[in-house]
Amino acid sequence: MGPLVTLAYSGGLDTSAIVPWLKETYGARVLCYVANVGQGEDDLAGVEQKAVRSGAVECVVDDLRERFVEGFVFPTLRAGAVYARSYLLGTAMARPVIAAGQVAAARAAGATHLSHGCTGKGNDQVRFELTFQALAPDLTVIAPWREWAFRGREDLLAFLRERRIPVKASQEQPYSRDQNLWHCSTEGGIVEDPGAAPSPDVFLLTADPTAAPNEPEEVTIAFEQGTPVALDAAPLAPVALLERLNELAGAHGVGRADVVEDRLVGMKSRGVYETPGGTVLRAAHRELEQLVLDRRTLALKDQLAPRYADLVYEGRWWTTERDALDALISVTQQRVTGAVRVRLFKGTVTVMSRRSPFSLYSSQHATFGADEVYDQADAAGFINLFGLPVRIAAEVANRPNRLMEVA
Amino acid sequence: MGPLVTLAYSGGLDTSAIVPWLKETYGARVLCYVANVGQGEDDLAGVEQKAVRSGAVECVVDDLRERFVEGFVFPTLRAGAVYARSYLLGTAMARPVIAAGQVAAARAAGATHLSHGCTGKGNDQVRFELTFQALAPDLTVIAPWREWAFRGREDLLAFLRERRIPVKASQEQPYSRDQNLWHCSTEGGIVEDPGAAPSPDVFLLTADPTAAPNEPEEVTIAFEQGTPVALDAAPLAPVALLERLNELAGAHGVGRADVVEDRLVGMKSRGVYETPGGTVLRAAHRELEQLVLDRRTLALKDQLAPRYADLVYEGRWWTTERDALDALISVTQQRVTGAVRVRLFKGTVTVMSRRSPFSLYSSQHATFGADEVYDQADAAGFINLFGLPVRIAAEVANRPNRLMEVA
Amino acid sequence: MGPLVTLAYSGGLDTSAIVPWLKETYGARVLCYVANVGQGEDDLAGVEQKAVRSGAVECVVDDLRERFVEGFVFPTLRAGAVYARSYLLGTAMARPVIAAGQVAAARAAGATHLSHGCTGKGNDQVRFELTFQALAPDLTVIAPWREWAFRGREDLLAFLRERRIPVKASQEQPYSRDQNLWHCSTEGGIVEDPGAAPSPDVFLLTADPTAAPNEPEEVTIAFEQGTPVALDAAPLAPVALLERLNELAGAHGVGRADVVEDRLVGMKSRGVYETPGGTVLRAAHRELEQLVLDRRTLALKDQLAPRYADLVYEGRWWTTERDALDALISVTQQRVTGAVRVRLFKGTVTVMSRRSPFSLYSSQHATFGADEVYDQADAAGFINLFGLPVRIAAEVANRPNRLMEVA
Amino acid sequence: MGPLVTLAYSGGLDTSAIVPWLKETYGARVLCYVANVGQGEDDLAGVEQKAVRSGAVECVVDDLRERFVEGFVFPTLRAGAVYARSYLLGTAMARPVIAAGQVAAARAAGATHLSHGCTGKGNDQVRFELTFQALAPDLTVIAPWREWAFRGREDLLAFLRERRIPVKASQEQPYSRDQNLWHCSTEGGIVEDPGAAPSPDVFLLTADPTAAPNEPEEVTIAFEQGTPVALDAAPLAPVALLERLNELAGAHGVGRADVVEDRLVGMKSRGVYETPGGTVLRAAHRELEQLVLDRRTLALKDQLAPRYADLVYEGRWWTTERDALDALISVTQQRVTGAVRVRLFKGTVTVMSRRSPFSLYSSQHATFGADEVYDQADAAGFINLFGLPVRIAAEVANRPNRLMEVA
Repeated sequence: MGPLVTLAYSGGLDTSAIVPWLKETYGARVLCYVANVGQGEDDLAGVEQKAVRSGAVECVVDDLRERFVEGFVFPTLRAGAVYARSYLLGTAMARPVIAAGQVAAARAAGATHLSHGCTGKGNDQVRFELTFQALAPDLTVIAPWREWAFRGREDLLAFLRERRIPVKASQEQPYSRDQNLWHCSTEGGIVEDPGAAPSPDVFLLTADPTAAPNEPEEVTIAFEQGTPVALDAAPLAPVALLERLNELAGAHGVGRADVVEDRLVGMKSRGVYETPGGTVLRAAHRELEQLVLDRRTLALKDQLAPRYADLVYEGRWWTTERDALDALISVTQQRVTGAVRVRLFKGTVTVMSRRSPFSLYSSQHATFGADEVYDQADAAGFINLFGLPVRIAAEVANRPNRLMEVA
Repeated sequence: MGPLVTLAYSGGLDTSAIVPWLKETYGARVLCYVANVGQGEDDLAGVEQKAVRSGAVECVVDDLRERFVEGFVFPTLRAGAVYARSYLLGTAMARPVIAAGQVAAARAAGATHLSHGCTGKGNDQVRFELTFQALAPDLTVIAPWREWAFRGREDLLAFLRERRIPVKASQEQPYSRDQNLWHCSTEGGIVEDPGAAPSPDVFLLTADPTAAPNEPEEVTIAFEQGTPVALDAAPLAPVALLERLNELAGAHGVGRADVVEDRLVGMKSRGVYETPGGTVLRAAHRELEQLVLDRRTLALKDQLAPRYADLVYEGRWWTTERDALDALISVTQQRVTGAVRVRLFKGTVTVMSRRSPFSLYSSQHATFGADEVYDQADAAGFINLFGLPVRIAAEVANRPNRLMEVA
Repeated sequence: MGPLVTLAYSGGLDTSAIVPWLKETYGARVLCYVANVGQGEDDLAGVEQKAVRSGAVECVVDDLRERFVEGFVFPTLRAGAVYARSYLLGTAMARPVIAAGQVAAARAAGATHLSHGCTGKGNDQVRFELTFQALAPDLTVIAPWREWAFRGREDLLAFLRERRIPVKASQEQPYSRDQNLWHCSTEGGIVEDPGAAPSPDVFLLTADPTAAPNEPEEVTIAFEQGTPVALDAAPLAPVALLERLNELAGAHGVGRADVVEDRLVGMKSRGVYETPGGTVLRAAHRELEQLVLDRRTLALKDQLAPRYADLVYEGRWWTTERDALDALISVTQQRVTGAVRVRLFKGTVTVMSRRSPFSLYSSQHATFGADEVYDQADAAGFINLFGLPVRIAAEVANRPNRLMEVA
Repeated sequence: MGPLVTLAYSGGLDTSAIVPWLKETYGARVLCYVANVGQGEDDLAGVEQKAVRSGAVECVVDDLRERFVEGFVFPTLRAGAVYARSYLLGTAMARPVIAAGQVAAARAAGATHLSHGCTGKGNDQVRFELTFQALAPDLTVIAPWREWAFRGREDLLAFLRERRIPVKASQEQPYSRDQNLWHCSTEGGIVEDPGAAPSPDVFLLTADPTAAPNEPEEVTIAFEQGTPVALDAAPLAPVALLERLNELAGAHGVGRADVVEDRLVGMKSRGVYETPGGTVLRAAHRELEQLVLDRRTLALKDQLAPRYADLVYEGRWWTTERDALDALISVTQQRVTGAVRVRLFKGTVTVMSRRSPFSLYSSQHATFGADEVYDQADAAGFINLFGLPVRIAAEVANRPNRLMEVA
């Protein structure tokens, strides 16, 4: 009897072909693992039957939405992590939660092998497999796209037709997409030309800003210790909050990013990302931080954010480095509690107000009007010492350069 | 005969009072120095006469616009420097060029003292005086706001009235502003409440996004070695290019930033900034960099950008640190040549296209379709080695912890 | 009745003069606070009587040694913090623990003022007063050296003689020193010439390496979670461990550092530091980290160490930034458990062995001999992808630069 | 006719076997390329004949010593780059200069293939091939150790014996070494146990400190713009200077480093490095920098040094990142001119004196004695503003937390 392989299964063309390919190539029994991270009802409907029709011995659907948002999305939000200046890491964050769920399913079923449908040219293979190496170094990984001879969609369709495995007779998808509660990414097709603007059919979650409502809409987001907890004073659980904010922001065309990025495997790629709710959360969270964190703590966080983004992007989630960064970030978030009101309008998110019981803003100190707390004469001493290195350097530069006596 | 003092003069209430105050307090002769950095015709009209009426022995108006944009604005743009996450440093960049011009004027006139009208609670005093310390450590600095007993506007008006020095009978300005070719900042008044949105009268350079044109407008910006050189294929000198882009972007409500920031002198303040053309240039420049710079060079630049921002914000312009950073940045910009087309619409700037002869984007490498240049099997080796530390750490964590023999 | 002032008192000339000066200048009652941080018996002997003879109403001696080593020295060791490339921060770390003890004493006694004897040119004034601002912003600080007219030692002696306050008839100390359990610093006198080597009388804790024993000596230091806990397998409490290691290392001339550093208040200074035990602990701790921490966690720590050093040096101990960094460091130290054997010999400390149950060193993976765990062919794939950006850049550089079409 | 392959040839066992293996496997003609980077006369003697006896069509010996020291060693010294806290990068720096020479030789001869003898488990394969990808992306690389079936020394000996190719009948080398003008590295054999101290036969360039002369020796190193130019006031060319300093320092046991490091290919390894002259140069260079560079420039350099070390270690020499860093470093070195006297004694290098015409040390400012340039009262203002964030944070922490109104 062949090995039991747990396959991260989506129901799409690639993983539908992988099931029979694993059976034929490895004599495997295939357990399909489907993670629900909010990719939408369409993707999940009938996925179990589809898996079985492809030849799987079983198909498990696992609802990871709460774990995804609480354990992966919000920590990354608190870290302020952004890759390539504007990619909010929606796909990258989803991989370790899915792969960890897959490992747990494999353990439960006694599987000895893990498989995924990621291409050999992308980042996702690395993210899946680093989770496998961290959590299941004893299991064997099979990555069909790096092994088989198929070159593309037509090869897969032919392979399935030969085996009389039904595939939805859809026309070719023009794009490669990944969608979850946080975002939808679009790559491939005409998006592969960075000289061309994405066409309207690229966008699934956000309205075209030029067609968005003419009336702005405002929403207030409350945070506790860096975590969003309420909209317009109504407490909401993480998943519900994100769903609601996605709707609000998406309707106003907020959250589009068009990014030329460097893949981990060495080449540049171009992706279009829609992160409506996430874009709003990020704007509000940053704003609140600027009110309650001192300059140096902010600078420390901002210095580390790219490190955090790199490790998420590269799939190094299950590492000491992330544990260490999370510990640091948690301390910084202890007073990131308060409320930020934003205005959504035709693709823009504008902060209207920020309030916090831990605000470090002191209007007495800030005002250019008269105050009772600040002695302007102090500034003279400050400048004299702050500027002392500049003064000494100027004096050295001006002093006649004596010949140096080497001895 | 008293000392000759060169005063950075604006024609506003504060510096109008400083002229007679310097004469009375120090027996000084006062040379007023007015730098034109694009603050607008209104501010410069009749400024010489005003200075003389206040008691100045002379007033020099110096056109620094070209030097400002070429030598201060564009280097900071190339550095990607932003303070407090969204302040584009318009006031901070202007101070060293003005103060350097003031020093040159003082040298030409044989002045022994330098003076400015900056308050003792702000950043500008530091920026002026660090330039003085760097370029003229031998000259004496007088900072009236840190010395005199006046507490505010009414005191100054009374002082001037007593001396029959005319001041424009304008009503009180609700805000403290600073305007130049790059931006306009607004502080003070109701802006001092970070819980309240700025009222419409705060904005001078940008249309309200909700009232901006319903039709988007596109513009293509060409860069050579990181410096903007043309709009819509028409070459433009730096000042003209910035003026034109300010108009275009301002009309579409682009470039507003509402920032709670940490002043160098220790307190948080809140400012509203309008940087219409600059916001567009920054967006376009970043985009072009992402096309032509490799991942590590981008990361290096992004790591250093906050350092650059800090030194500009803190007035440490004339330092070895800036020279060193500029040298690094220049190398990174050698291939930042190309064109970026952006769309302006109701407060948004959206990149539509980026092209460069030095593009590192290779569609053959990027495509998820078939290609001739990439062997997907390579990824297996890559992942095995990239993930090796993760795998070894997992194995160590799982291995039974033998008692440690200390010896 | 005048205010009650708590003075950080050492029994030296300066603080002996401050007691009567505070009484005369402020009508103060003076409570002398003496912190024992291991400065040695000589300094503490008879200090209470001395204080009372100077006019203090009371003198409290507080043994802070354990708190100092556990709460300040070892965290800084774990952080790997070093200032100016080789200063191990002995004086800087002692200030916040002393000043915090002083605040507690002031609170207990109901004092309203705090005072210290630090000069206005040094770092220590800043360190004391930042602790005061953090822990007692409501108390008033008196810094005599910044207020009184005395210029030096002779003025103070005359002032005390007039008041018939006895001072030890010692000859003038040639140096300014600070000693505690961690180190002894020496500044002033001939040390102020960075072109001259320190003379033998500068050194108090370390033998001259040329006169140290001809036989090397070895010692094994055990760490648990980054904290030293035993010498040669004998468990020792922090203070005892440090005392023992100081003797051992000092006898072999280990731990001297001769540093030109930048003071916080803007000028360069030159100090000679002896940190015998600390130098050994640092060497051993780093070595153990390299065995048990992965590359990226090491790099993260090393990136942050200068930040930690800066905040210690600058007296910013009681800040969110330090709390955050400590949280990160704690995570990294969870497996820094093991033993390091070092050899001490004529000023050198050489690591002879490092062992840990959490070692990430895998001889199978490392060996250039045959192994069963590593497939050398993987390296080909790794190099192809790792080098892909270099290859693409080379191809772009070589491709004929078409004229760019701006449009 | 088979391809012409240029092989980086050392004359050792591995490359001796590669020559016939390339001929047999690829039908190749083999051009042996030997770079002289100061590995010593023994290694170079008779190397051409040896190559021809192995079957090479030609053997070219190229003296790269000057280029190596000037173009690779000194830039890395100026950068302050150190990997894994104490590895001075001697092998890593040599690879790009050798590989670049090899590419030039290949171009001159019209070769189409490049080959090297690096193992598939080490860093050197990456360094060689990244140079190939940067400078010759059009040439094909053959890496025998990743291709052939031989597992170790015995297999190679048997292969050569069968072909009657003579190999020196030396006994097995216990270590894997790499030597050049800058250093000698030793790996393998008993060095593979990080729990054991290296045995005496590991060391080739440095005396055992316990057996080194009982008399210290001093030497003065003069630098111009960060580059060492003279010893004891006698100007020396780079190669001669380094050779002389290697002798001096090696005789006193200076320059040993015993390092557990992370290889680029993912595992930890342990190496012993001897860098006698380099260790002295590094100590002296750092010391001079501390005298002439301001605090922030020093901090900037120290922040970037690990980046530089990483790129050297990883073979990313021919990249924009290095060009950019070198440009920055060059600016910082403009005033790193002066002389440093050091004492060498039984493994220690101690700075005795540092002098520079550009010294920023001002004894007037530094002295705790009386001075004419510093107003101690300035410190009060400085502390008040420097400490203001700490004070405000303390006040916020103490203020009763009103319930927050979310709205």
